[in-house]
Amino acid sequence: MALLHEDRLLPVEPSVKNLARALYDTVADAPIISPHGHTDPRWFAENAPFADPAQLFVTPDHYAFRMLHSQGVPLEAMGVPRVDGGATETDGRKIWRLLAENYHLFRGTPSRGWLDHAFQEVFGLDVPLCAKTADHYYDHISEKLSTPEFLPRALFERFNIEVIATTESPLDELKWHKMIRSSGWGGRVITAYRPDPVVDPDFEGFTGNVAQFCALAGVPGTSWQDYLDAHRARRAFFKEMGATSTDHGHPTAFTENLGAAEAEALYAKVMSGKADAAAREAFRGQMLTEMAKMSLDDGLVMQIHPGSYRNHSDPILASFGRDKGYDIPTRTDYVHALQPLLDVVGEEPEFTLILFTLDETAYARELAPLAGVYPALKLGPAWWFHDSPEGMRRYREMTTETAGFYNTVGFNDDTRAFMSIPARHDVARRVDAGFLATLVATGRLYEDEAFEVIQDLAHRLARQAYRL
Amino acid sequence: MALLHEDRLLPVEPSVKNLARALYDTVADAPIISPHGHTDPRWFAENAPFADPAQLFVTPDHYAFRMLHSQGVPLEAMGVPRVDGGATETDGRKIWRLLAENYHLFRGTPSRGWLDHAFQEVFGLDVPLCAKTADHYYDHISEKLSTPEFLPRALFERFNIEVIATTESPLDELKWHKMIRSSGWGGRVITAYRPDPVVDPDFEGFTGNVAQFCALAGVPGTSWQDYLDAHRARRAFFKEMGATSTDHGHPTAFTENLGAAEAEALYAKVMSGKADAAAREAFRGQMLTEMAKMSLDDGLVMQIHPGSYRNHSDPILASFGRDKGYDIPTRTDYVHALQPLLDVVGEEPEFTLILFTLDETAYARELAPLAGVYPALKLGPAWWFHDSPEGMRRYREMTTETAGFYNTVGFNDDTRAFMSIPARHDVARRVDAGFLATLVATGRLYEDEAFEVIQDLAHRLARQAYRL
Amino acid sequence: MALLHEDRLLPVEPSVKNLARALYDTVADAPIISPHGHTDPRWFAENAPFADPAQLFVTPDHYAFRMLHSQGVPLEAMGVPRVDGGATETDGRKIWRLLAENYHLFRGTPSRGWLDHAFQEVFGLDVPLCAKTADHYYDHISEKLSTPEFLPRALFERFNIEVIATTESPLDELKWHKMIRSSGWGGRVITAYRPDPVVDPDFEGFTGNVAQFCALAGVPGTSWQDYLDAHRARRAFFKEMGATSTDHGHPTAFTENLGAAEAEALYAKVMSGKADAAAREAFRGQMLTEMAKMSLDDGLVMQIHPGSYRNHSDPILASFGRDKGYDIPTRTDYVHALQPLLDVVGEEPEFTLILFTLDETAYARELAPLAGVYPALKLGPAWWFHDSPEGMRRYREMTTETAGFYNTVGFNDDTRAFMSIPARHDVARRVDAGFLATLVATGRLYEDEAFEVIQDLAHRLARQAYRL
Repeated sequence: MALLHEDRLLPVEPSVKNLARALYDTVADAPIISPHGHTDPRWFAENAPFADPAQLFVTPDHYAFRMLHSQGVPLEAMGVPRVDGGATETDGRKIWRLLAENYHLFRGTPSRGWLDHAFQEVFGLDVPLCAKTADHYYDHISEKLSTPEFLPRALFERFNIEVIATTESPLDELKWHKMIRSSGWGGRVITAYRPDPVVDPDFEGFTGNVAQFCALAGVPGTSWQDYLDAHRARRAFFKEMGATSTDHGHPTAFTENLGAAEAEALYAKVMSGKADAAAREAFRGQMLTEMAKMSLDDGLVMQIHPGSYRNHSDPILASFGRDKGYDIPTRTDYVHALQPLLDVVGEEPEFTLILFTLDETAYARELAPLAGVYPALKLGPAWWFHDSPEGMRRYREMTTETAGFYNTVGFNDDTRAFMSIPARHDVARRVDAGFLATLVATGRLYEDEAFEVIQDLAHRLARQAYRL
Repeated sequence: MALLHEDRLLPVEPSVKNLARALYDTVADAPIISPHGHTDPRWFAENAPFADPAQLFVTPDHYAFRMLHSQGVPLEAMGVPRVDGGATETDGRKIWRLLAENYHLFRGTPSRGWLDHAFQEVFGLDVPLCAKTADHYYDHISEKLSTPEFLPRALFERFNIEVIATTESPLDELKWHKMIRSSGWGGRVITAYRPDPVVDPDFEGFTGNVAQFCALAGVPGTSWQDYLDAHRARRAFFKEMGATSTDHGHPTAFTENLGAAEAEALYAKVMSGKADAAAREAFRGQMLTEMAKMSLDDGLVMQIHPGSYRNHSDPILASFGRDKGYDIPTRTDYVHALQPLLDVVGEEPEFTLILFTLDETAYARELAPLAGVYPALKLGPAWWFHDSPEGMRRYREMTTETAGFYNTVGFNDDTRAFMSIPARHDVARRVDAGFLATLVATGRLYEDEAFEVIQDLAHRLARQAYRL
Repeated sequence: MALLHEDRLLPVEPSVKNLARALYDTVADAPIISPHGHTDPRWFAENAPFADPAQLFVTPDHYAFRMLHSQGVPLEAMGVPRVDGGATETDGRKIWRLLAENYHLFRGTPSRGWLDHAFQEVFGLDVPLCAKTADHYYDHISEKLSTPEFLPRALFERFNIEVIATTESPLDELKWHKMIRSSGWGGRVITAYRPDPVVDPDFEGFTGNVAQFCALAGVPGTSWQDYLDAHRARRAFFKEMGATSTDHGHPTAFTENLGAAEAEALYAKVMSGKADAAAREAFRGQMLTEMAKMSLDDGLVMQIHPGSYRNHSDPILASFGRDKGYDIPTRTDYVHALQPLLDVVGEEPEFTLILFTLDETAYARELAPLAGVYPALKLGPAWWFHDSPEGMRRYREMTTETAGFYNTVGFNDDTRAFMSIPARHDVARRVDAGFLATLVATGRLYEDEAFEVIQDLAHRLARQAYRL
């Protein structure tokens, strides 16, 4: 049997479905532009085989292990490493069986769709995953992973990826990116500048990070001016290594626009380790504005990904560390928060700031009205928990009427799960095809326009917005 | 004519409707599990006939009288008793006519659907209610209510209720529950522990309540340890009388995790009557954590129902008292609010905390991400103003992609309107059938899975989550 | 070709569409009641021809110029006047071509629908607007505007406007309204009392405005009592000039209910120019309650339009002034904010307060529950950025179940774009027809009721609520 429904995610009314299908067909095989994500450049540098199915699909994927954990499966049982080096499951087959036995938990979730897509389209499986088929899956996938067709570069080409961006810290020497470049392989893998470790005073080891950062950038000391120069230098280096964008994962979208002396004093305070919460937030906010001004100079597109309460569980953070599925969205204000930055660079058509949100209430109320007037602003696609069929539908329904399509930037997969990339782009293309077909069917768009817009949404807008 | 449409609340596209209908048909007659509600145990203890139609459908039902009042009908005219004992309408027929004449006000509301369901399915009426049919309705319902088939226990059995939970204060001696048990009747009516009167310093008569509570529990005094012991004792008593859950109706979801000495000092302060608003909120928050720890010991499932601004109108509170339709939802935070409690018990798979909300913006942003990772958390169904077809649809669309179905707990009717119970469960089953059919039609679920999930949603999840 | 789809904005499933169409057909030609808007009474007073197409459709329309500006078109290029009197484009044809070349930006927006509606229905155009047809459009529209059939009064009659309300400051002498009245023309153009310039201490020139206001009202000084009397006098004058309503555009919905002495002291403080932000907000809040009490006396219906962060960009405000598309919605609380006012007048069935919002999260959570119980409250229609097909659909889906239809007030166009009035009412009628047809198809409303409700929504409720 086919795991995937041919017309999945398209509207159900037959005439609308037919148009949606026709629209989708024109982009089903379009190249993948992946301007924001978290794949590991080492894969493409070394081109070594992926490890076993559990290491590919369960242990590193927070979508997968958080759902099993929510029903009581310990993280150790899924091989998630402990901070204290304590024992965790190492038998890939056992971990895989846990996924298989609990696969019903994913009913109705996007993870289920991404996994089934990879199982069928990448690995050619044709029976549903369940306890009974667990070993068949494990053996089949393991075997495939050992063949040349399943090496990272081969999959990159098979997935039709035109360009993919990874995300690195300014402290990263970009060794893998250099190795990819010098390898002679034609795949375009670029980096993005993510300075949180040297911009957020709450980041582990912040002051040490800054010292290392300035040294790496070859500036004489760590004064405010040195620090800003270090950013300029590292941004230039990242740009040389292909970067066209920066990314900022702040807890809020708060920005500041301080005078030079004030900013310098604030920097001194956070570097002294004596800054209180308000000062640390002010510094993050000021740095967004500084980054924006540098973007105006060097042309790197800026992205803000705010609003996640990171590492919500203290016990889990203590035992397993960061990024264990415990990042929870919070209410996020953009209107007041961005005002200081926008006063400085909002009217610059040469500057691009792409906004993301985990708070869908901001779509129609704040983000679309802002992006629908400021020349510098664009809206990033539905993100993280909202990178899903219903999330994407709500995104279009709540942003299009005020911001239109051309203040949006196409799709981002934002993933570290390489196998899910084609699936995620496919979902976006289907949902967009359905949205456009509905506009046509309800007299809000002509059919010829829909065929043009679907190309914009599938690849053109991403290329333009990210300057790729 | 039939008052009810055979395919009401199912999707309109014919192929999806057919599947939804097939799914619904498998649960249309499934037993009703009602794990959270506010019916009066006295009905089942005494098994006396219900009073007249107005006393059954209008005077005690805040959904009914608030809508008429919003268009200018005085509460007195609907027989709602005044605090000062002043005159209110006592003629049931006059009150009934008010409902009939204003029945158009309910167009498009769930109340209209619940009422029509009771009129047709319980009373066999077959003409729409309006001014002209008011007396016919009144006479017909009155006559039925005087027959043995319409006594509370007979209706309980006819409604196919497998188990129903009422809600009682810890100060309640559970006289009616005892009477039901000793009557030999087989209907399962259980209580639930709702300690707001002795946990919320803002509750009328709080300190007196605590004194009475400790005495009732047989503890020596009212010290912090006595007070906690009193909870343990009353919880044990409630459990003996069938309770499997506790319920907490706090203004916010705020929790605290204080050290023992701090908690004791806080208790002393609130008992002194000198605690300010922040201390009173802290006490409520600390008590949620204390209740959670006791649940871990005694196995009672915990529920939090936060976010209602109670008794919004001072004049109405002064004239008519509490619960007169003036409880208004407010914006509610869960991410910060629950963090302290979750640090203590969130990782315990043996503990269950069921969260409700009146703020739908929390579904996708906060509640589904929390329930989708913490082993202890589950999501209660769409509640109160959102216990409606559109409310249920939004609930599924905004929670399923991140929390799945298995971190939810099936349907709660949460009602004091006994006649509406079958109607409310029927609405939930129809909306869920439609949601599942849509998932199948759009390739997000296999058909055989949908037939399994509809059983889960209609009764299995409620039995499991509430340990029934 | 037809620019407009015959069945635009109706549901796509054929049987539902047919019913929606039948419902719509009964109101397609119903008279337009426009109880809240911002058209210029001078048009109807002088009845002079409208200027060129750019002056009609681009330069004064913030929906139009904000979208082009968001993609980098300078406001000057669209003829928007600069504060400093600096050069801006004056060639209407050049401005028009900018619109035409960028018309794709409006895909999926309500502006596109309104414009196409005016192009086809008002001007008889039958080719889509684009760069190639720009001059044809410009010539065609220019020619029409010079004919008697396109004079303001002729269009008023052709649009079948039964009554239209404009909005004026209390400082306005209503010269144009007087001229309309004395002209003998039968069109009903009335004013509305919008006292923001003399009620909001943050309004430009507030204290001067108050002085002028008291003088205009003929009160002896500017004491608190004089100031209140001046309101009474100006309200009476506005009422004489046809006003049936007042309107209040506050930044929040905050209200106060101060004692007389406190209010007087607060007034003295704001008049001294030394009031801080909290005091200025308190004054605005107190004035809402004062206005409500005056409404109880004089019968003017009260409207509150809160929640816009006005003039978000300092550089744009400095260069181009107010109302340049930089008003951005913010999160807005109603439950706490309105409580003081509602304690005073909420239970008065003779008083009507119509609430609007730019924060859709308040619909189901706050506004419908409030309007569904307070006799004085009604809900205004989806407003501004939400005056759109998706916005209207969400409005009905999120308010009807709790507030019903009869606590809403029909449609407001709220526009200064005269040509868009028929289009906007047409959109509302179509969306409502679709909503009602869906209720019928899903068994939530009888067909005969839907035919009654569509009349209510299209014109009856507006006449009743606004006492027209």
